[in-house]
Amino acid sequence: MIVAGGGPAGMSAAARAHRVDPSLEILAFEAGAYTSYAAAGLPYVVSGAVDTVDDLVVRTPAQHRARGIDVHERCRVTGIDLDARTVSVVDQARGTTDTYGFDHLVLATGASAIRPALPGMDAAGVFTIDSIPDAAAIDRAVGEARTHRAVVVGAGYTGLEMVEVLTERGLEVTLVEQGDRPMVRLDADLGARITDAIHARGVTTRFATAVTGFAADGDGRLRAVETTTGPIPAELVVLCVGVRPNVGFAAEAGITIGTTGAIATDARRRTGVSGVWAVGDCSESLHRVSQRPVWVGLGTHANKHGRVAGTNIAGGSARFEGVLGSAITLFGDTEIACTGLNASDAAVAGFAVATTVVEGATLPDYFPGSAAMTVKLVTDRSNGRLLGAQIVGGPGSGKRIDALAVAVWNEMTVGDYAQLDLSYSPPFAPVWETSLIAARLAGG
Amino acid sequence: MIVAGGGPAGMSAAARAHRVDPSLEILAFEAGAYTSYAAAGLPYVVSGAVDTVDDLVVRTPAQHRARGIDVHERCRVTGIDLDARTVSVVDQARGTTDTYGFDHLVLATGASAIRPALPGMDAAGVFTIDSIPDAAAIDRAVGEARTHRAVVVGAGYTGLEMVEVLTERGLEVTLVEQGDRPMVRLDADLGARITDAIHARGVTTRFATAVTGFAADGDGRLRAVETTTGPIPAELVVLCVGVRPNVGFAAEAGITIGTTGAIATDARRRTGVSGVWAVGDCSESLHRVSQRPVWVGLGTHANKHGRVAGTNIAGGSARFEGVLGSAITLFGDTEIACTGLNASDAAVAGFAVATTVVEGATLPDYFPGSAAMTVKLVTDRSNGRLLGAQIVGGPGSGKRIDALAVAVWNEMTVGDYAQLDLSYSPPFAPVWETSLIAARLAGG
Repeated sequence: MIVAGGGPAGMSAAARAHRVDPSLEILAFEAGAYTSYAAAGLPYVVSGAVDTVDDLVVRTPAQHRARGIDVHERCRVTGIDLDARTVSVVDQARGTTDTYGFDHLVLATGASAIRPALPGMDAAGVFTIDSIPDAAAIDRAVGEARTHRAVVVGAGYTGLEMVEVLTERGLEVTLVEQGDRPMVRLDADLGARITDAIHARGVTTRFATAVTGFAADGDGRLRAVETTTGPIPAELVVLCVGVRPNVGFAAEAGITIGTTGAIATDARRRTGVSGVWAVGDCSESLHRVSQRPVWVGLGTHANKHGRVAGTNIAGGSARFEGVLGSAITLFGDTEIACTGLNASDAAVAGFAVATTVVEGATLPDYFPGSAAMTVKLVTDRSNGRLLGAQIVGGPGSGKRIDALAVAVWNEMTVGDYAQLDLSYSPPFAPVWETSLIAARLAGG
Repeated sequence: MIVAGGGPAGMSAAARAHRVDPSLEILAFEAGAYTSYAAAGLPYVVSGAVDTVDDLVVRTPAQHRARGIDVHERCRVTGIDLDARTVSVVDQARGTTDTYGFDHLVLATGASAIRPALPGMDAAGVFTIDSIPDAAAIDRAVGEARTHRAVVVGAGYTGLEMVEVLTERGLEVTLVEQGDRPMVRLDADLGARITDAIHARGVTTRFATAVTGFAADGDGRLRAVETTTGPIPAELVVLCVGVRPNVGFAAEAGITIGTTGAIATDARRRTGVSGVWAVGDCSESLHRVSQRPVWVGLGTHANKHGRVAGTNIAGGSARFEGVLGSAITLFGDTEIACTGLNASDAAVAGFAVATTVVEGATLPDYFPGSAAMTVKLVTDRSNGRLLGAQIVGGPGSGKRIDALAVAVWNEMTVGDYAQLDLSYSPPFAPVWETSLIAARLAGG
């Protein structure tokens, strides 16, 4: 068994297979120096919440080896020969290329931040945040005396997190976004609340704006970000314009790439080629509500993918039961979370969509610390089925999305949801949780 | 339509019926001075978190009247004549008794704290916490210069909350409990963690101890609580030894009382007598897991009961779909929550019980503010069905019970649960939520 990629997905597959069948020979190759690290923690290295990048590493290559997984760091899989059942591996330290035979191959090559080909991309101070070295480099750049102004390009989860951490570090931040609002994963009505939170944090926004290039000073250091709405002076820019699954050599070998651009698999994480599996950010997942393949790059899925593939390779039987697109992020004191389909995606998926928005609170009005929260429910008008939910609110609001995620997972109707016995006492919740009120108003 | 009892259950029934059919004549009688108040907030009046008892009132009698509900406070329903279809009502202000005919009667008489008949019960400083006047009286007593030491009798939710609020007010507190641990709603292993939290708060505990009486000084003021393990000097004692549904006149009239001691109803909240309904703390609910009637006195259920009865009385159709026994409380920094059946109740209900306990954390290890949390799952060994869950942990742990509650509600197996797409980002959760790890270890 060969694992191409030493991130959480690949190493979970390796560890699980080893656990189920310790007699398996497992070889894992990681192009970088780090294995099994929490990519979601990278922004928090920059904020200082996480002390060092090493804290993000759940298990080092040496620790994996001590547990019986033969992992080789700085070794990049560069090609597959499906007829010979071999992979080519470049050992970047030694400069050699070797060929290894496999019975099972796990593709766990991850995804990479998109680096648009723009004039001036090579200026010092232009970053993506994609890896441990990236986070460390941004952290250093923020600490430089010349750095006062930052631009974040892209207002998705990672972009917002970068805005937040750069603001925390005291920089003057401008957020640039091609679309008309932040967080397009949320519907526009809830997106407007996030825009308010961004402005309340003193951040300048430029929506409907595209970056056209980067101007540097004589030393080759970033001076300004050029955009379709004029230049923005800055010493630092972080491009958070999306990530792309790393499927190069898999596609070249003829392994099926799905409509999302990621490797297509079945629920067992099998690709179209016998003995070749795909897990984590290089691969698709089934969306349980739309029943369509989606690409979601999150450690939660990567870990589960790996576990499923590892079980199956070792002779067990496991299925990955799909995703809901659950997500959560923190911006200042504002918690932003969603699960299932938003209204537009639900319409695209063919549902007759109804939506309900309720302004509520995390605690009873009379209790100190109660924070405002908005819950939006997306339902199937024909039968009341809960298709998705979104929350934007103050401290304590975001994680309440999980009850809604379990409900969407179980295809509950809003009628059923409104009856739920959710936990209640004044330091934790009002007697009617906002989501229950929303379900009631949605017809429950 | 007559409503006996102006708490949340009765007034929800009245308000809902009025909304569905504004032509209904509705008369509501409340024995006390307050309607629609949040009894769960009473302890927090004593702590000072809630400024005044008035803050707990969601809607006053005058506000109800303004909305078309003819509510009469200080009027106690004292009897029913089921043949004549009338109730007797004592107007406590005027000292008169009147008879009112009804087509529909909603019994919403609530529950009362048990006041055991012990020697010295009439000493000043002996309290139960059952009503707004009780909370105000305890608040005053705590503020008296002579009050330094308090005893709380009973280590259930209310008892723990009173220990917490009296500790916050600076009193030296002793907790007396007949059983061998606090919170018998939780299994003993998790109960031990609560005991640790109680001791860490500087509170003295006396388990396996029964109160035998109260000693007063010459002025009739409490001096000591006498117990089977010796006297405890104290100026204040709060008895939190349970509550009893107020079913007196309903039982006398021949309305069926269930095995729990509360009024039996069907899912529509009908008693055994046509046109007579029962809602809130005076009545039973069906437990969805055990499929047995239970008594749970919580505002969440009271509100839903009332809404269901009101809908049905007004000609609509609604069912109360049962309870899970979800509960949550805060003790210091320790959050305590449960849903579904605990291990012993599950065994009594006839399940082949398996349990899994996992020590986890609210956030990734590397993230600041991560708190330890313990999750216990109770499962049906024969099919992996999740029967119940318990959480004891630090800040941010308790409300995670809701995802488990939705899972128990939907009769999920631990196998399904372990696959769930719960929201993840470092400021909110580790990549594997503790409950997911527990579900995996439980066989998921």
